[in-house]
Amino acid sequence: MLEGKVLVAQGGGPTAVINQSLVGTVLESRKFRNVSLVYGALHGVRGIINEDFVDLTQETTHNLEMVGETPSSALGSCRDKPDLKYCQEIFKVLRAHEIRYFFYIGGNDSSDTTRIVAEEAQKADHPLVCVHIPKTIDNDVVLNDHTPGFPSAARFVTQAFLGANLDNRSLPGVYIGVVMGRHAGFLTAAAALGKKFPDDGPHMIYLPERTFRLENFIADVKSAYDRFGRCVVAVSEGIHDEAGVPIATQLAKQVERDAHGNVQLSGSGALAELLCSEVKEKLGLSRVRGDTLGYLQRSFIGCVSDIDQREAREVAEKAVQFAMWGETSGSVIIERTGYYSVDYRLVPLAAVAGKTRTMPDEFISASGTDVTDAYRLYLRPLLGKSMPDQYRLRRNTVAKILT
Amino acid sequence: MLEGKVLVAQGGGPTAVINQSLVGTVLESRKFRNVSLVYGALHGVRGIINEDFVDLTQETTHNLEMVGETPSSALGSCRDKPDLKYCQEIFKVLRAHEIRYFFYIGGNDSSDTTRIVAEEAQKADHPLVCVHIPKTIDNDVVLNDHTPGFPSAARFVTQAFLGANLDNRSLPGVYIGVVMGRHAGFLTAAAALGKKFPDDGPHMIYLPERTFRLENFIADVKSAYDRFGRCVVAVSEGIHDEAGVPIATQLAKQVERDAHGNVQLSGSGALAELLCSEVKEKLGLSRVRGDTLGYLQRSFIGCVSDIDQREAREVAEKAVQFAMWGETSGSVIIERTGYYSVDYRLVPLAAVAGKTRTMPDEFISASGTDVTDAYRLYLRPLLGKSMPDQYRLRRNTVAKILT
Repeated sequence: MLEGKVLVAQGGGPTAVINQSLVGTVLESRKFRNVSLVYGALHGVRGIINEDFVDLTQETTHNLEMVGETPSSALGSCRDKPDLKYCQEIFKVLRAHEIRYFFYIGGNDSSDTTRIVAEEAQKADHPLVCVHIPKTIDNDVVLNDHTPGFPSAARFVTQAFLGANLDNRSLPGVYIGVVMGRHAGFLTAAAALGKKFPDDGPHMIYLPERTFRLENFIADVKSAYDRFGRCVVAVSEGIHDEAGVPIATQLAKQVERDAHGNVQLSGSGALAELLCSEVKEKLGLSRVRGDTLGYLQRSFIGCVSDIDQREAREVAEKAVQFAMWGETSGSVIIERTGYYSVDYRLVPLAAVAGKTRTMPDEFISASGTDVTDAYRLYLRPLLGKSMPDQYRLRRNTVAKILT
Repeated sequence: MLEGKVLVAQGGGPTAVINQSLVGTVLESRKFRNVSLVYGALHGVRGIINEDFVDLTQETTHNLEMVGETPSSALGSCRDKPDLKYCQEIFKVLRAHEIRYFFYIGGNDSSDTTRIVAEEAQKADHPLVCVHIPKTIDNDVVLNDHTPGFPSAARFVTQAFLGANLDNRSLPGVYIGVVMGRHAGFLTAAAALGKKFPDDGPHMIYLPERTFRLENFIADVKSAYDRFGRCVVAVSEGIHDEAGVPIATQLAKQVERDAHGNVQLSGSGALAELLCSEVKEKLGLSRVRGDTLGYLQRSFIGCVSDIDQREAREVAEKAVQFAMWGETSGSVIIERTGYYSVDYRLVPLAAVAGKTRTMPDEFISASGTDVTDAYRLYLRPLLGKSMPDQYRLRRNTVAKILT
């Protein structure tokens, strides 16, 4: 095993359990004798090039455990998308601080950064093990059964639509809820898991895996409204037309792009507004309401899947073990080994880096606006225990007297 | 005690605990020998004039208890604002069905309906006891220390901003969260309860009890951003200019009004959009994000205050007792008798009906954009037990080598 320091950083959007992976990395690293110190980089890769490090070896176990239960990235994050030059800067700093193990907790883009840094070290024949620890609420990292962060966000989305459906049932109308997920519809699809009775919403789910056609959407809403006297719809922020242009940006005056060249879809209620006004106009309905679940779905405290918490911890523990015993860079993936159980495996960074997973066809109904039972079975154990449930009054109708 | 039937109905916007009041009314009524049957009206007062009744006497205790824990109005609700003629129709139906006790669970408008129906019965010298059972997430019913539904919604808002602040701390920028509450800022003010560290947001809170000036808002955001490198803001949907015109409607092309003549403020992200674009434009900041908490804050399942649940049950139990033993119409109010304990009292309907309570000055800081410790003390016990907490890493900074 290499003697020296460990560095851990968090990249991309926060999740409810990303700190479990941070804590798992720190606590597991501290068990290894060859590890002298454990550093954390503040605000992801930007903290590395700025040498903004904190010494996590000095943290108490209690405080680490408490931080582990706190949502969002405790070290801070950033949206920088490092190119080769940026990664060379990272490598320079890691070498200067005698970092032997670099753990980067993040999504697709972070795995790509990890890959380039590992390649730089190899080119320089410098002893450095780089391991990517997966996280993302979008669930779009390839090879993984699912990624830490997704189950808790999915739990939030399930509970949100369960409540929104009850609200809509009480005061009937059309309700449109917009969910995060640029390319992958896994999170939007979680809206289906709160359905219990045959007339429960969401009555339609629009995913980025299928082309969105406004005229079909309007017809679907009309059909559901005619049938149920109300309509609840779950929509992914990433829905797009046949040319792949996001519906959200077709009406935006100014298109905002992030460092990855991605059009900004979150942090704006524009899509919900657009869809609501189309329904009002085309169908002449008055009570049409839209919510954009926004940042709540990834950082809400107190709505966490216990399965997700444990796996986010485990995946980091395993990352440290793979790094120490194998001395190989890679990305840790989660594989499903039973219903429900998982195991972890290290795969080459290139197998994961920069790739995007989307929902397989078997999870999407033939109509394209619902999920299949296969998806329900897939997601259910991930949501964790003590999922709240809904109940209804039975309809013992009283005979009318006056009418 | 009057021999005959009980009728219960739910009015206005749903809450997370309004079904506890329904269940409290049903179970307590069923203990009284003079009560022959307990009816529920579907969709509030509209269900009464349509004679859409269900017989709740036939419900099992188990199912009632489960419904009690389910958010939103199990009987359904409506937004009708009954005038005198409408109330006379209600009275006609109550008389035809030999209803002796009418319990109406709702807010200010519902209490006014209860008052008019009670007056009609009195005019006709007809034996009918009408009791208003308070609920509203806005907490704007006069004479009450607080109203059932508010504590759970406040818990949601507290947790939402706690998470949003952590998210914003991880990826710094400006975050604006819009909270329900047309005239009263109690719910928006709950955003302050998640603050733990001195630099935690929300850094400003804008309430409908104070005049909103866009130029001051922009200056406040700039000042907080300069100080913290980021800024989290809580805004009430009801903020208005000096003339009392809601900011949300100043940009709306079409203004939608409900049956009460109120301009529609919820179910639209327009206010967050407006404020975000003003901040971007005036301060030249790029990462500005807005969320509208929307319907989630009143119907989210699994984020309920245990205190709220119990009080929503108790207030209905007491309503039934007051009605049976006192044979007097009225509204039940919640009084604080200790820290923390409450008691219930019946007051004349006219003392509550149609009045609106707003936040007292002692709860709002001199700056007008924060709450006082008096408010924190007021709200804290209402949020209930097991409130999630946040923790941070301690900053044991590592010396830089390269820079």
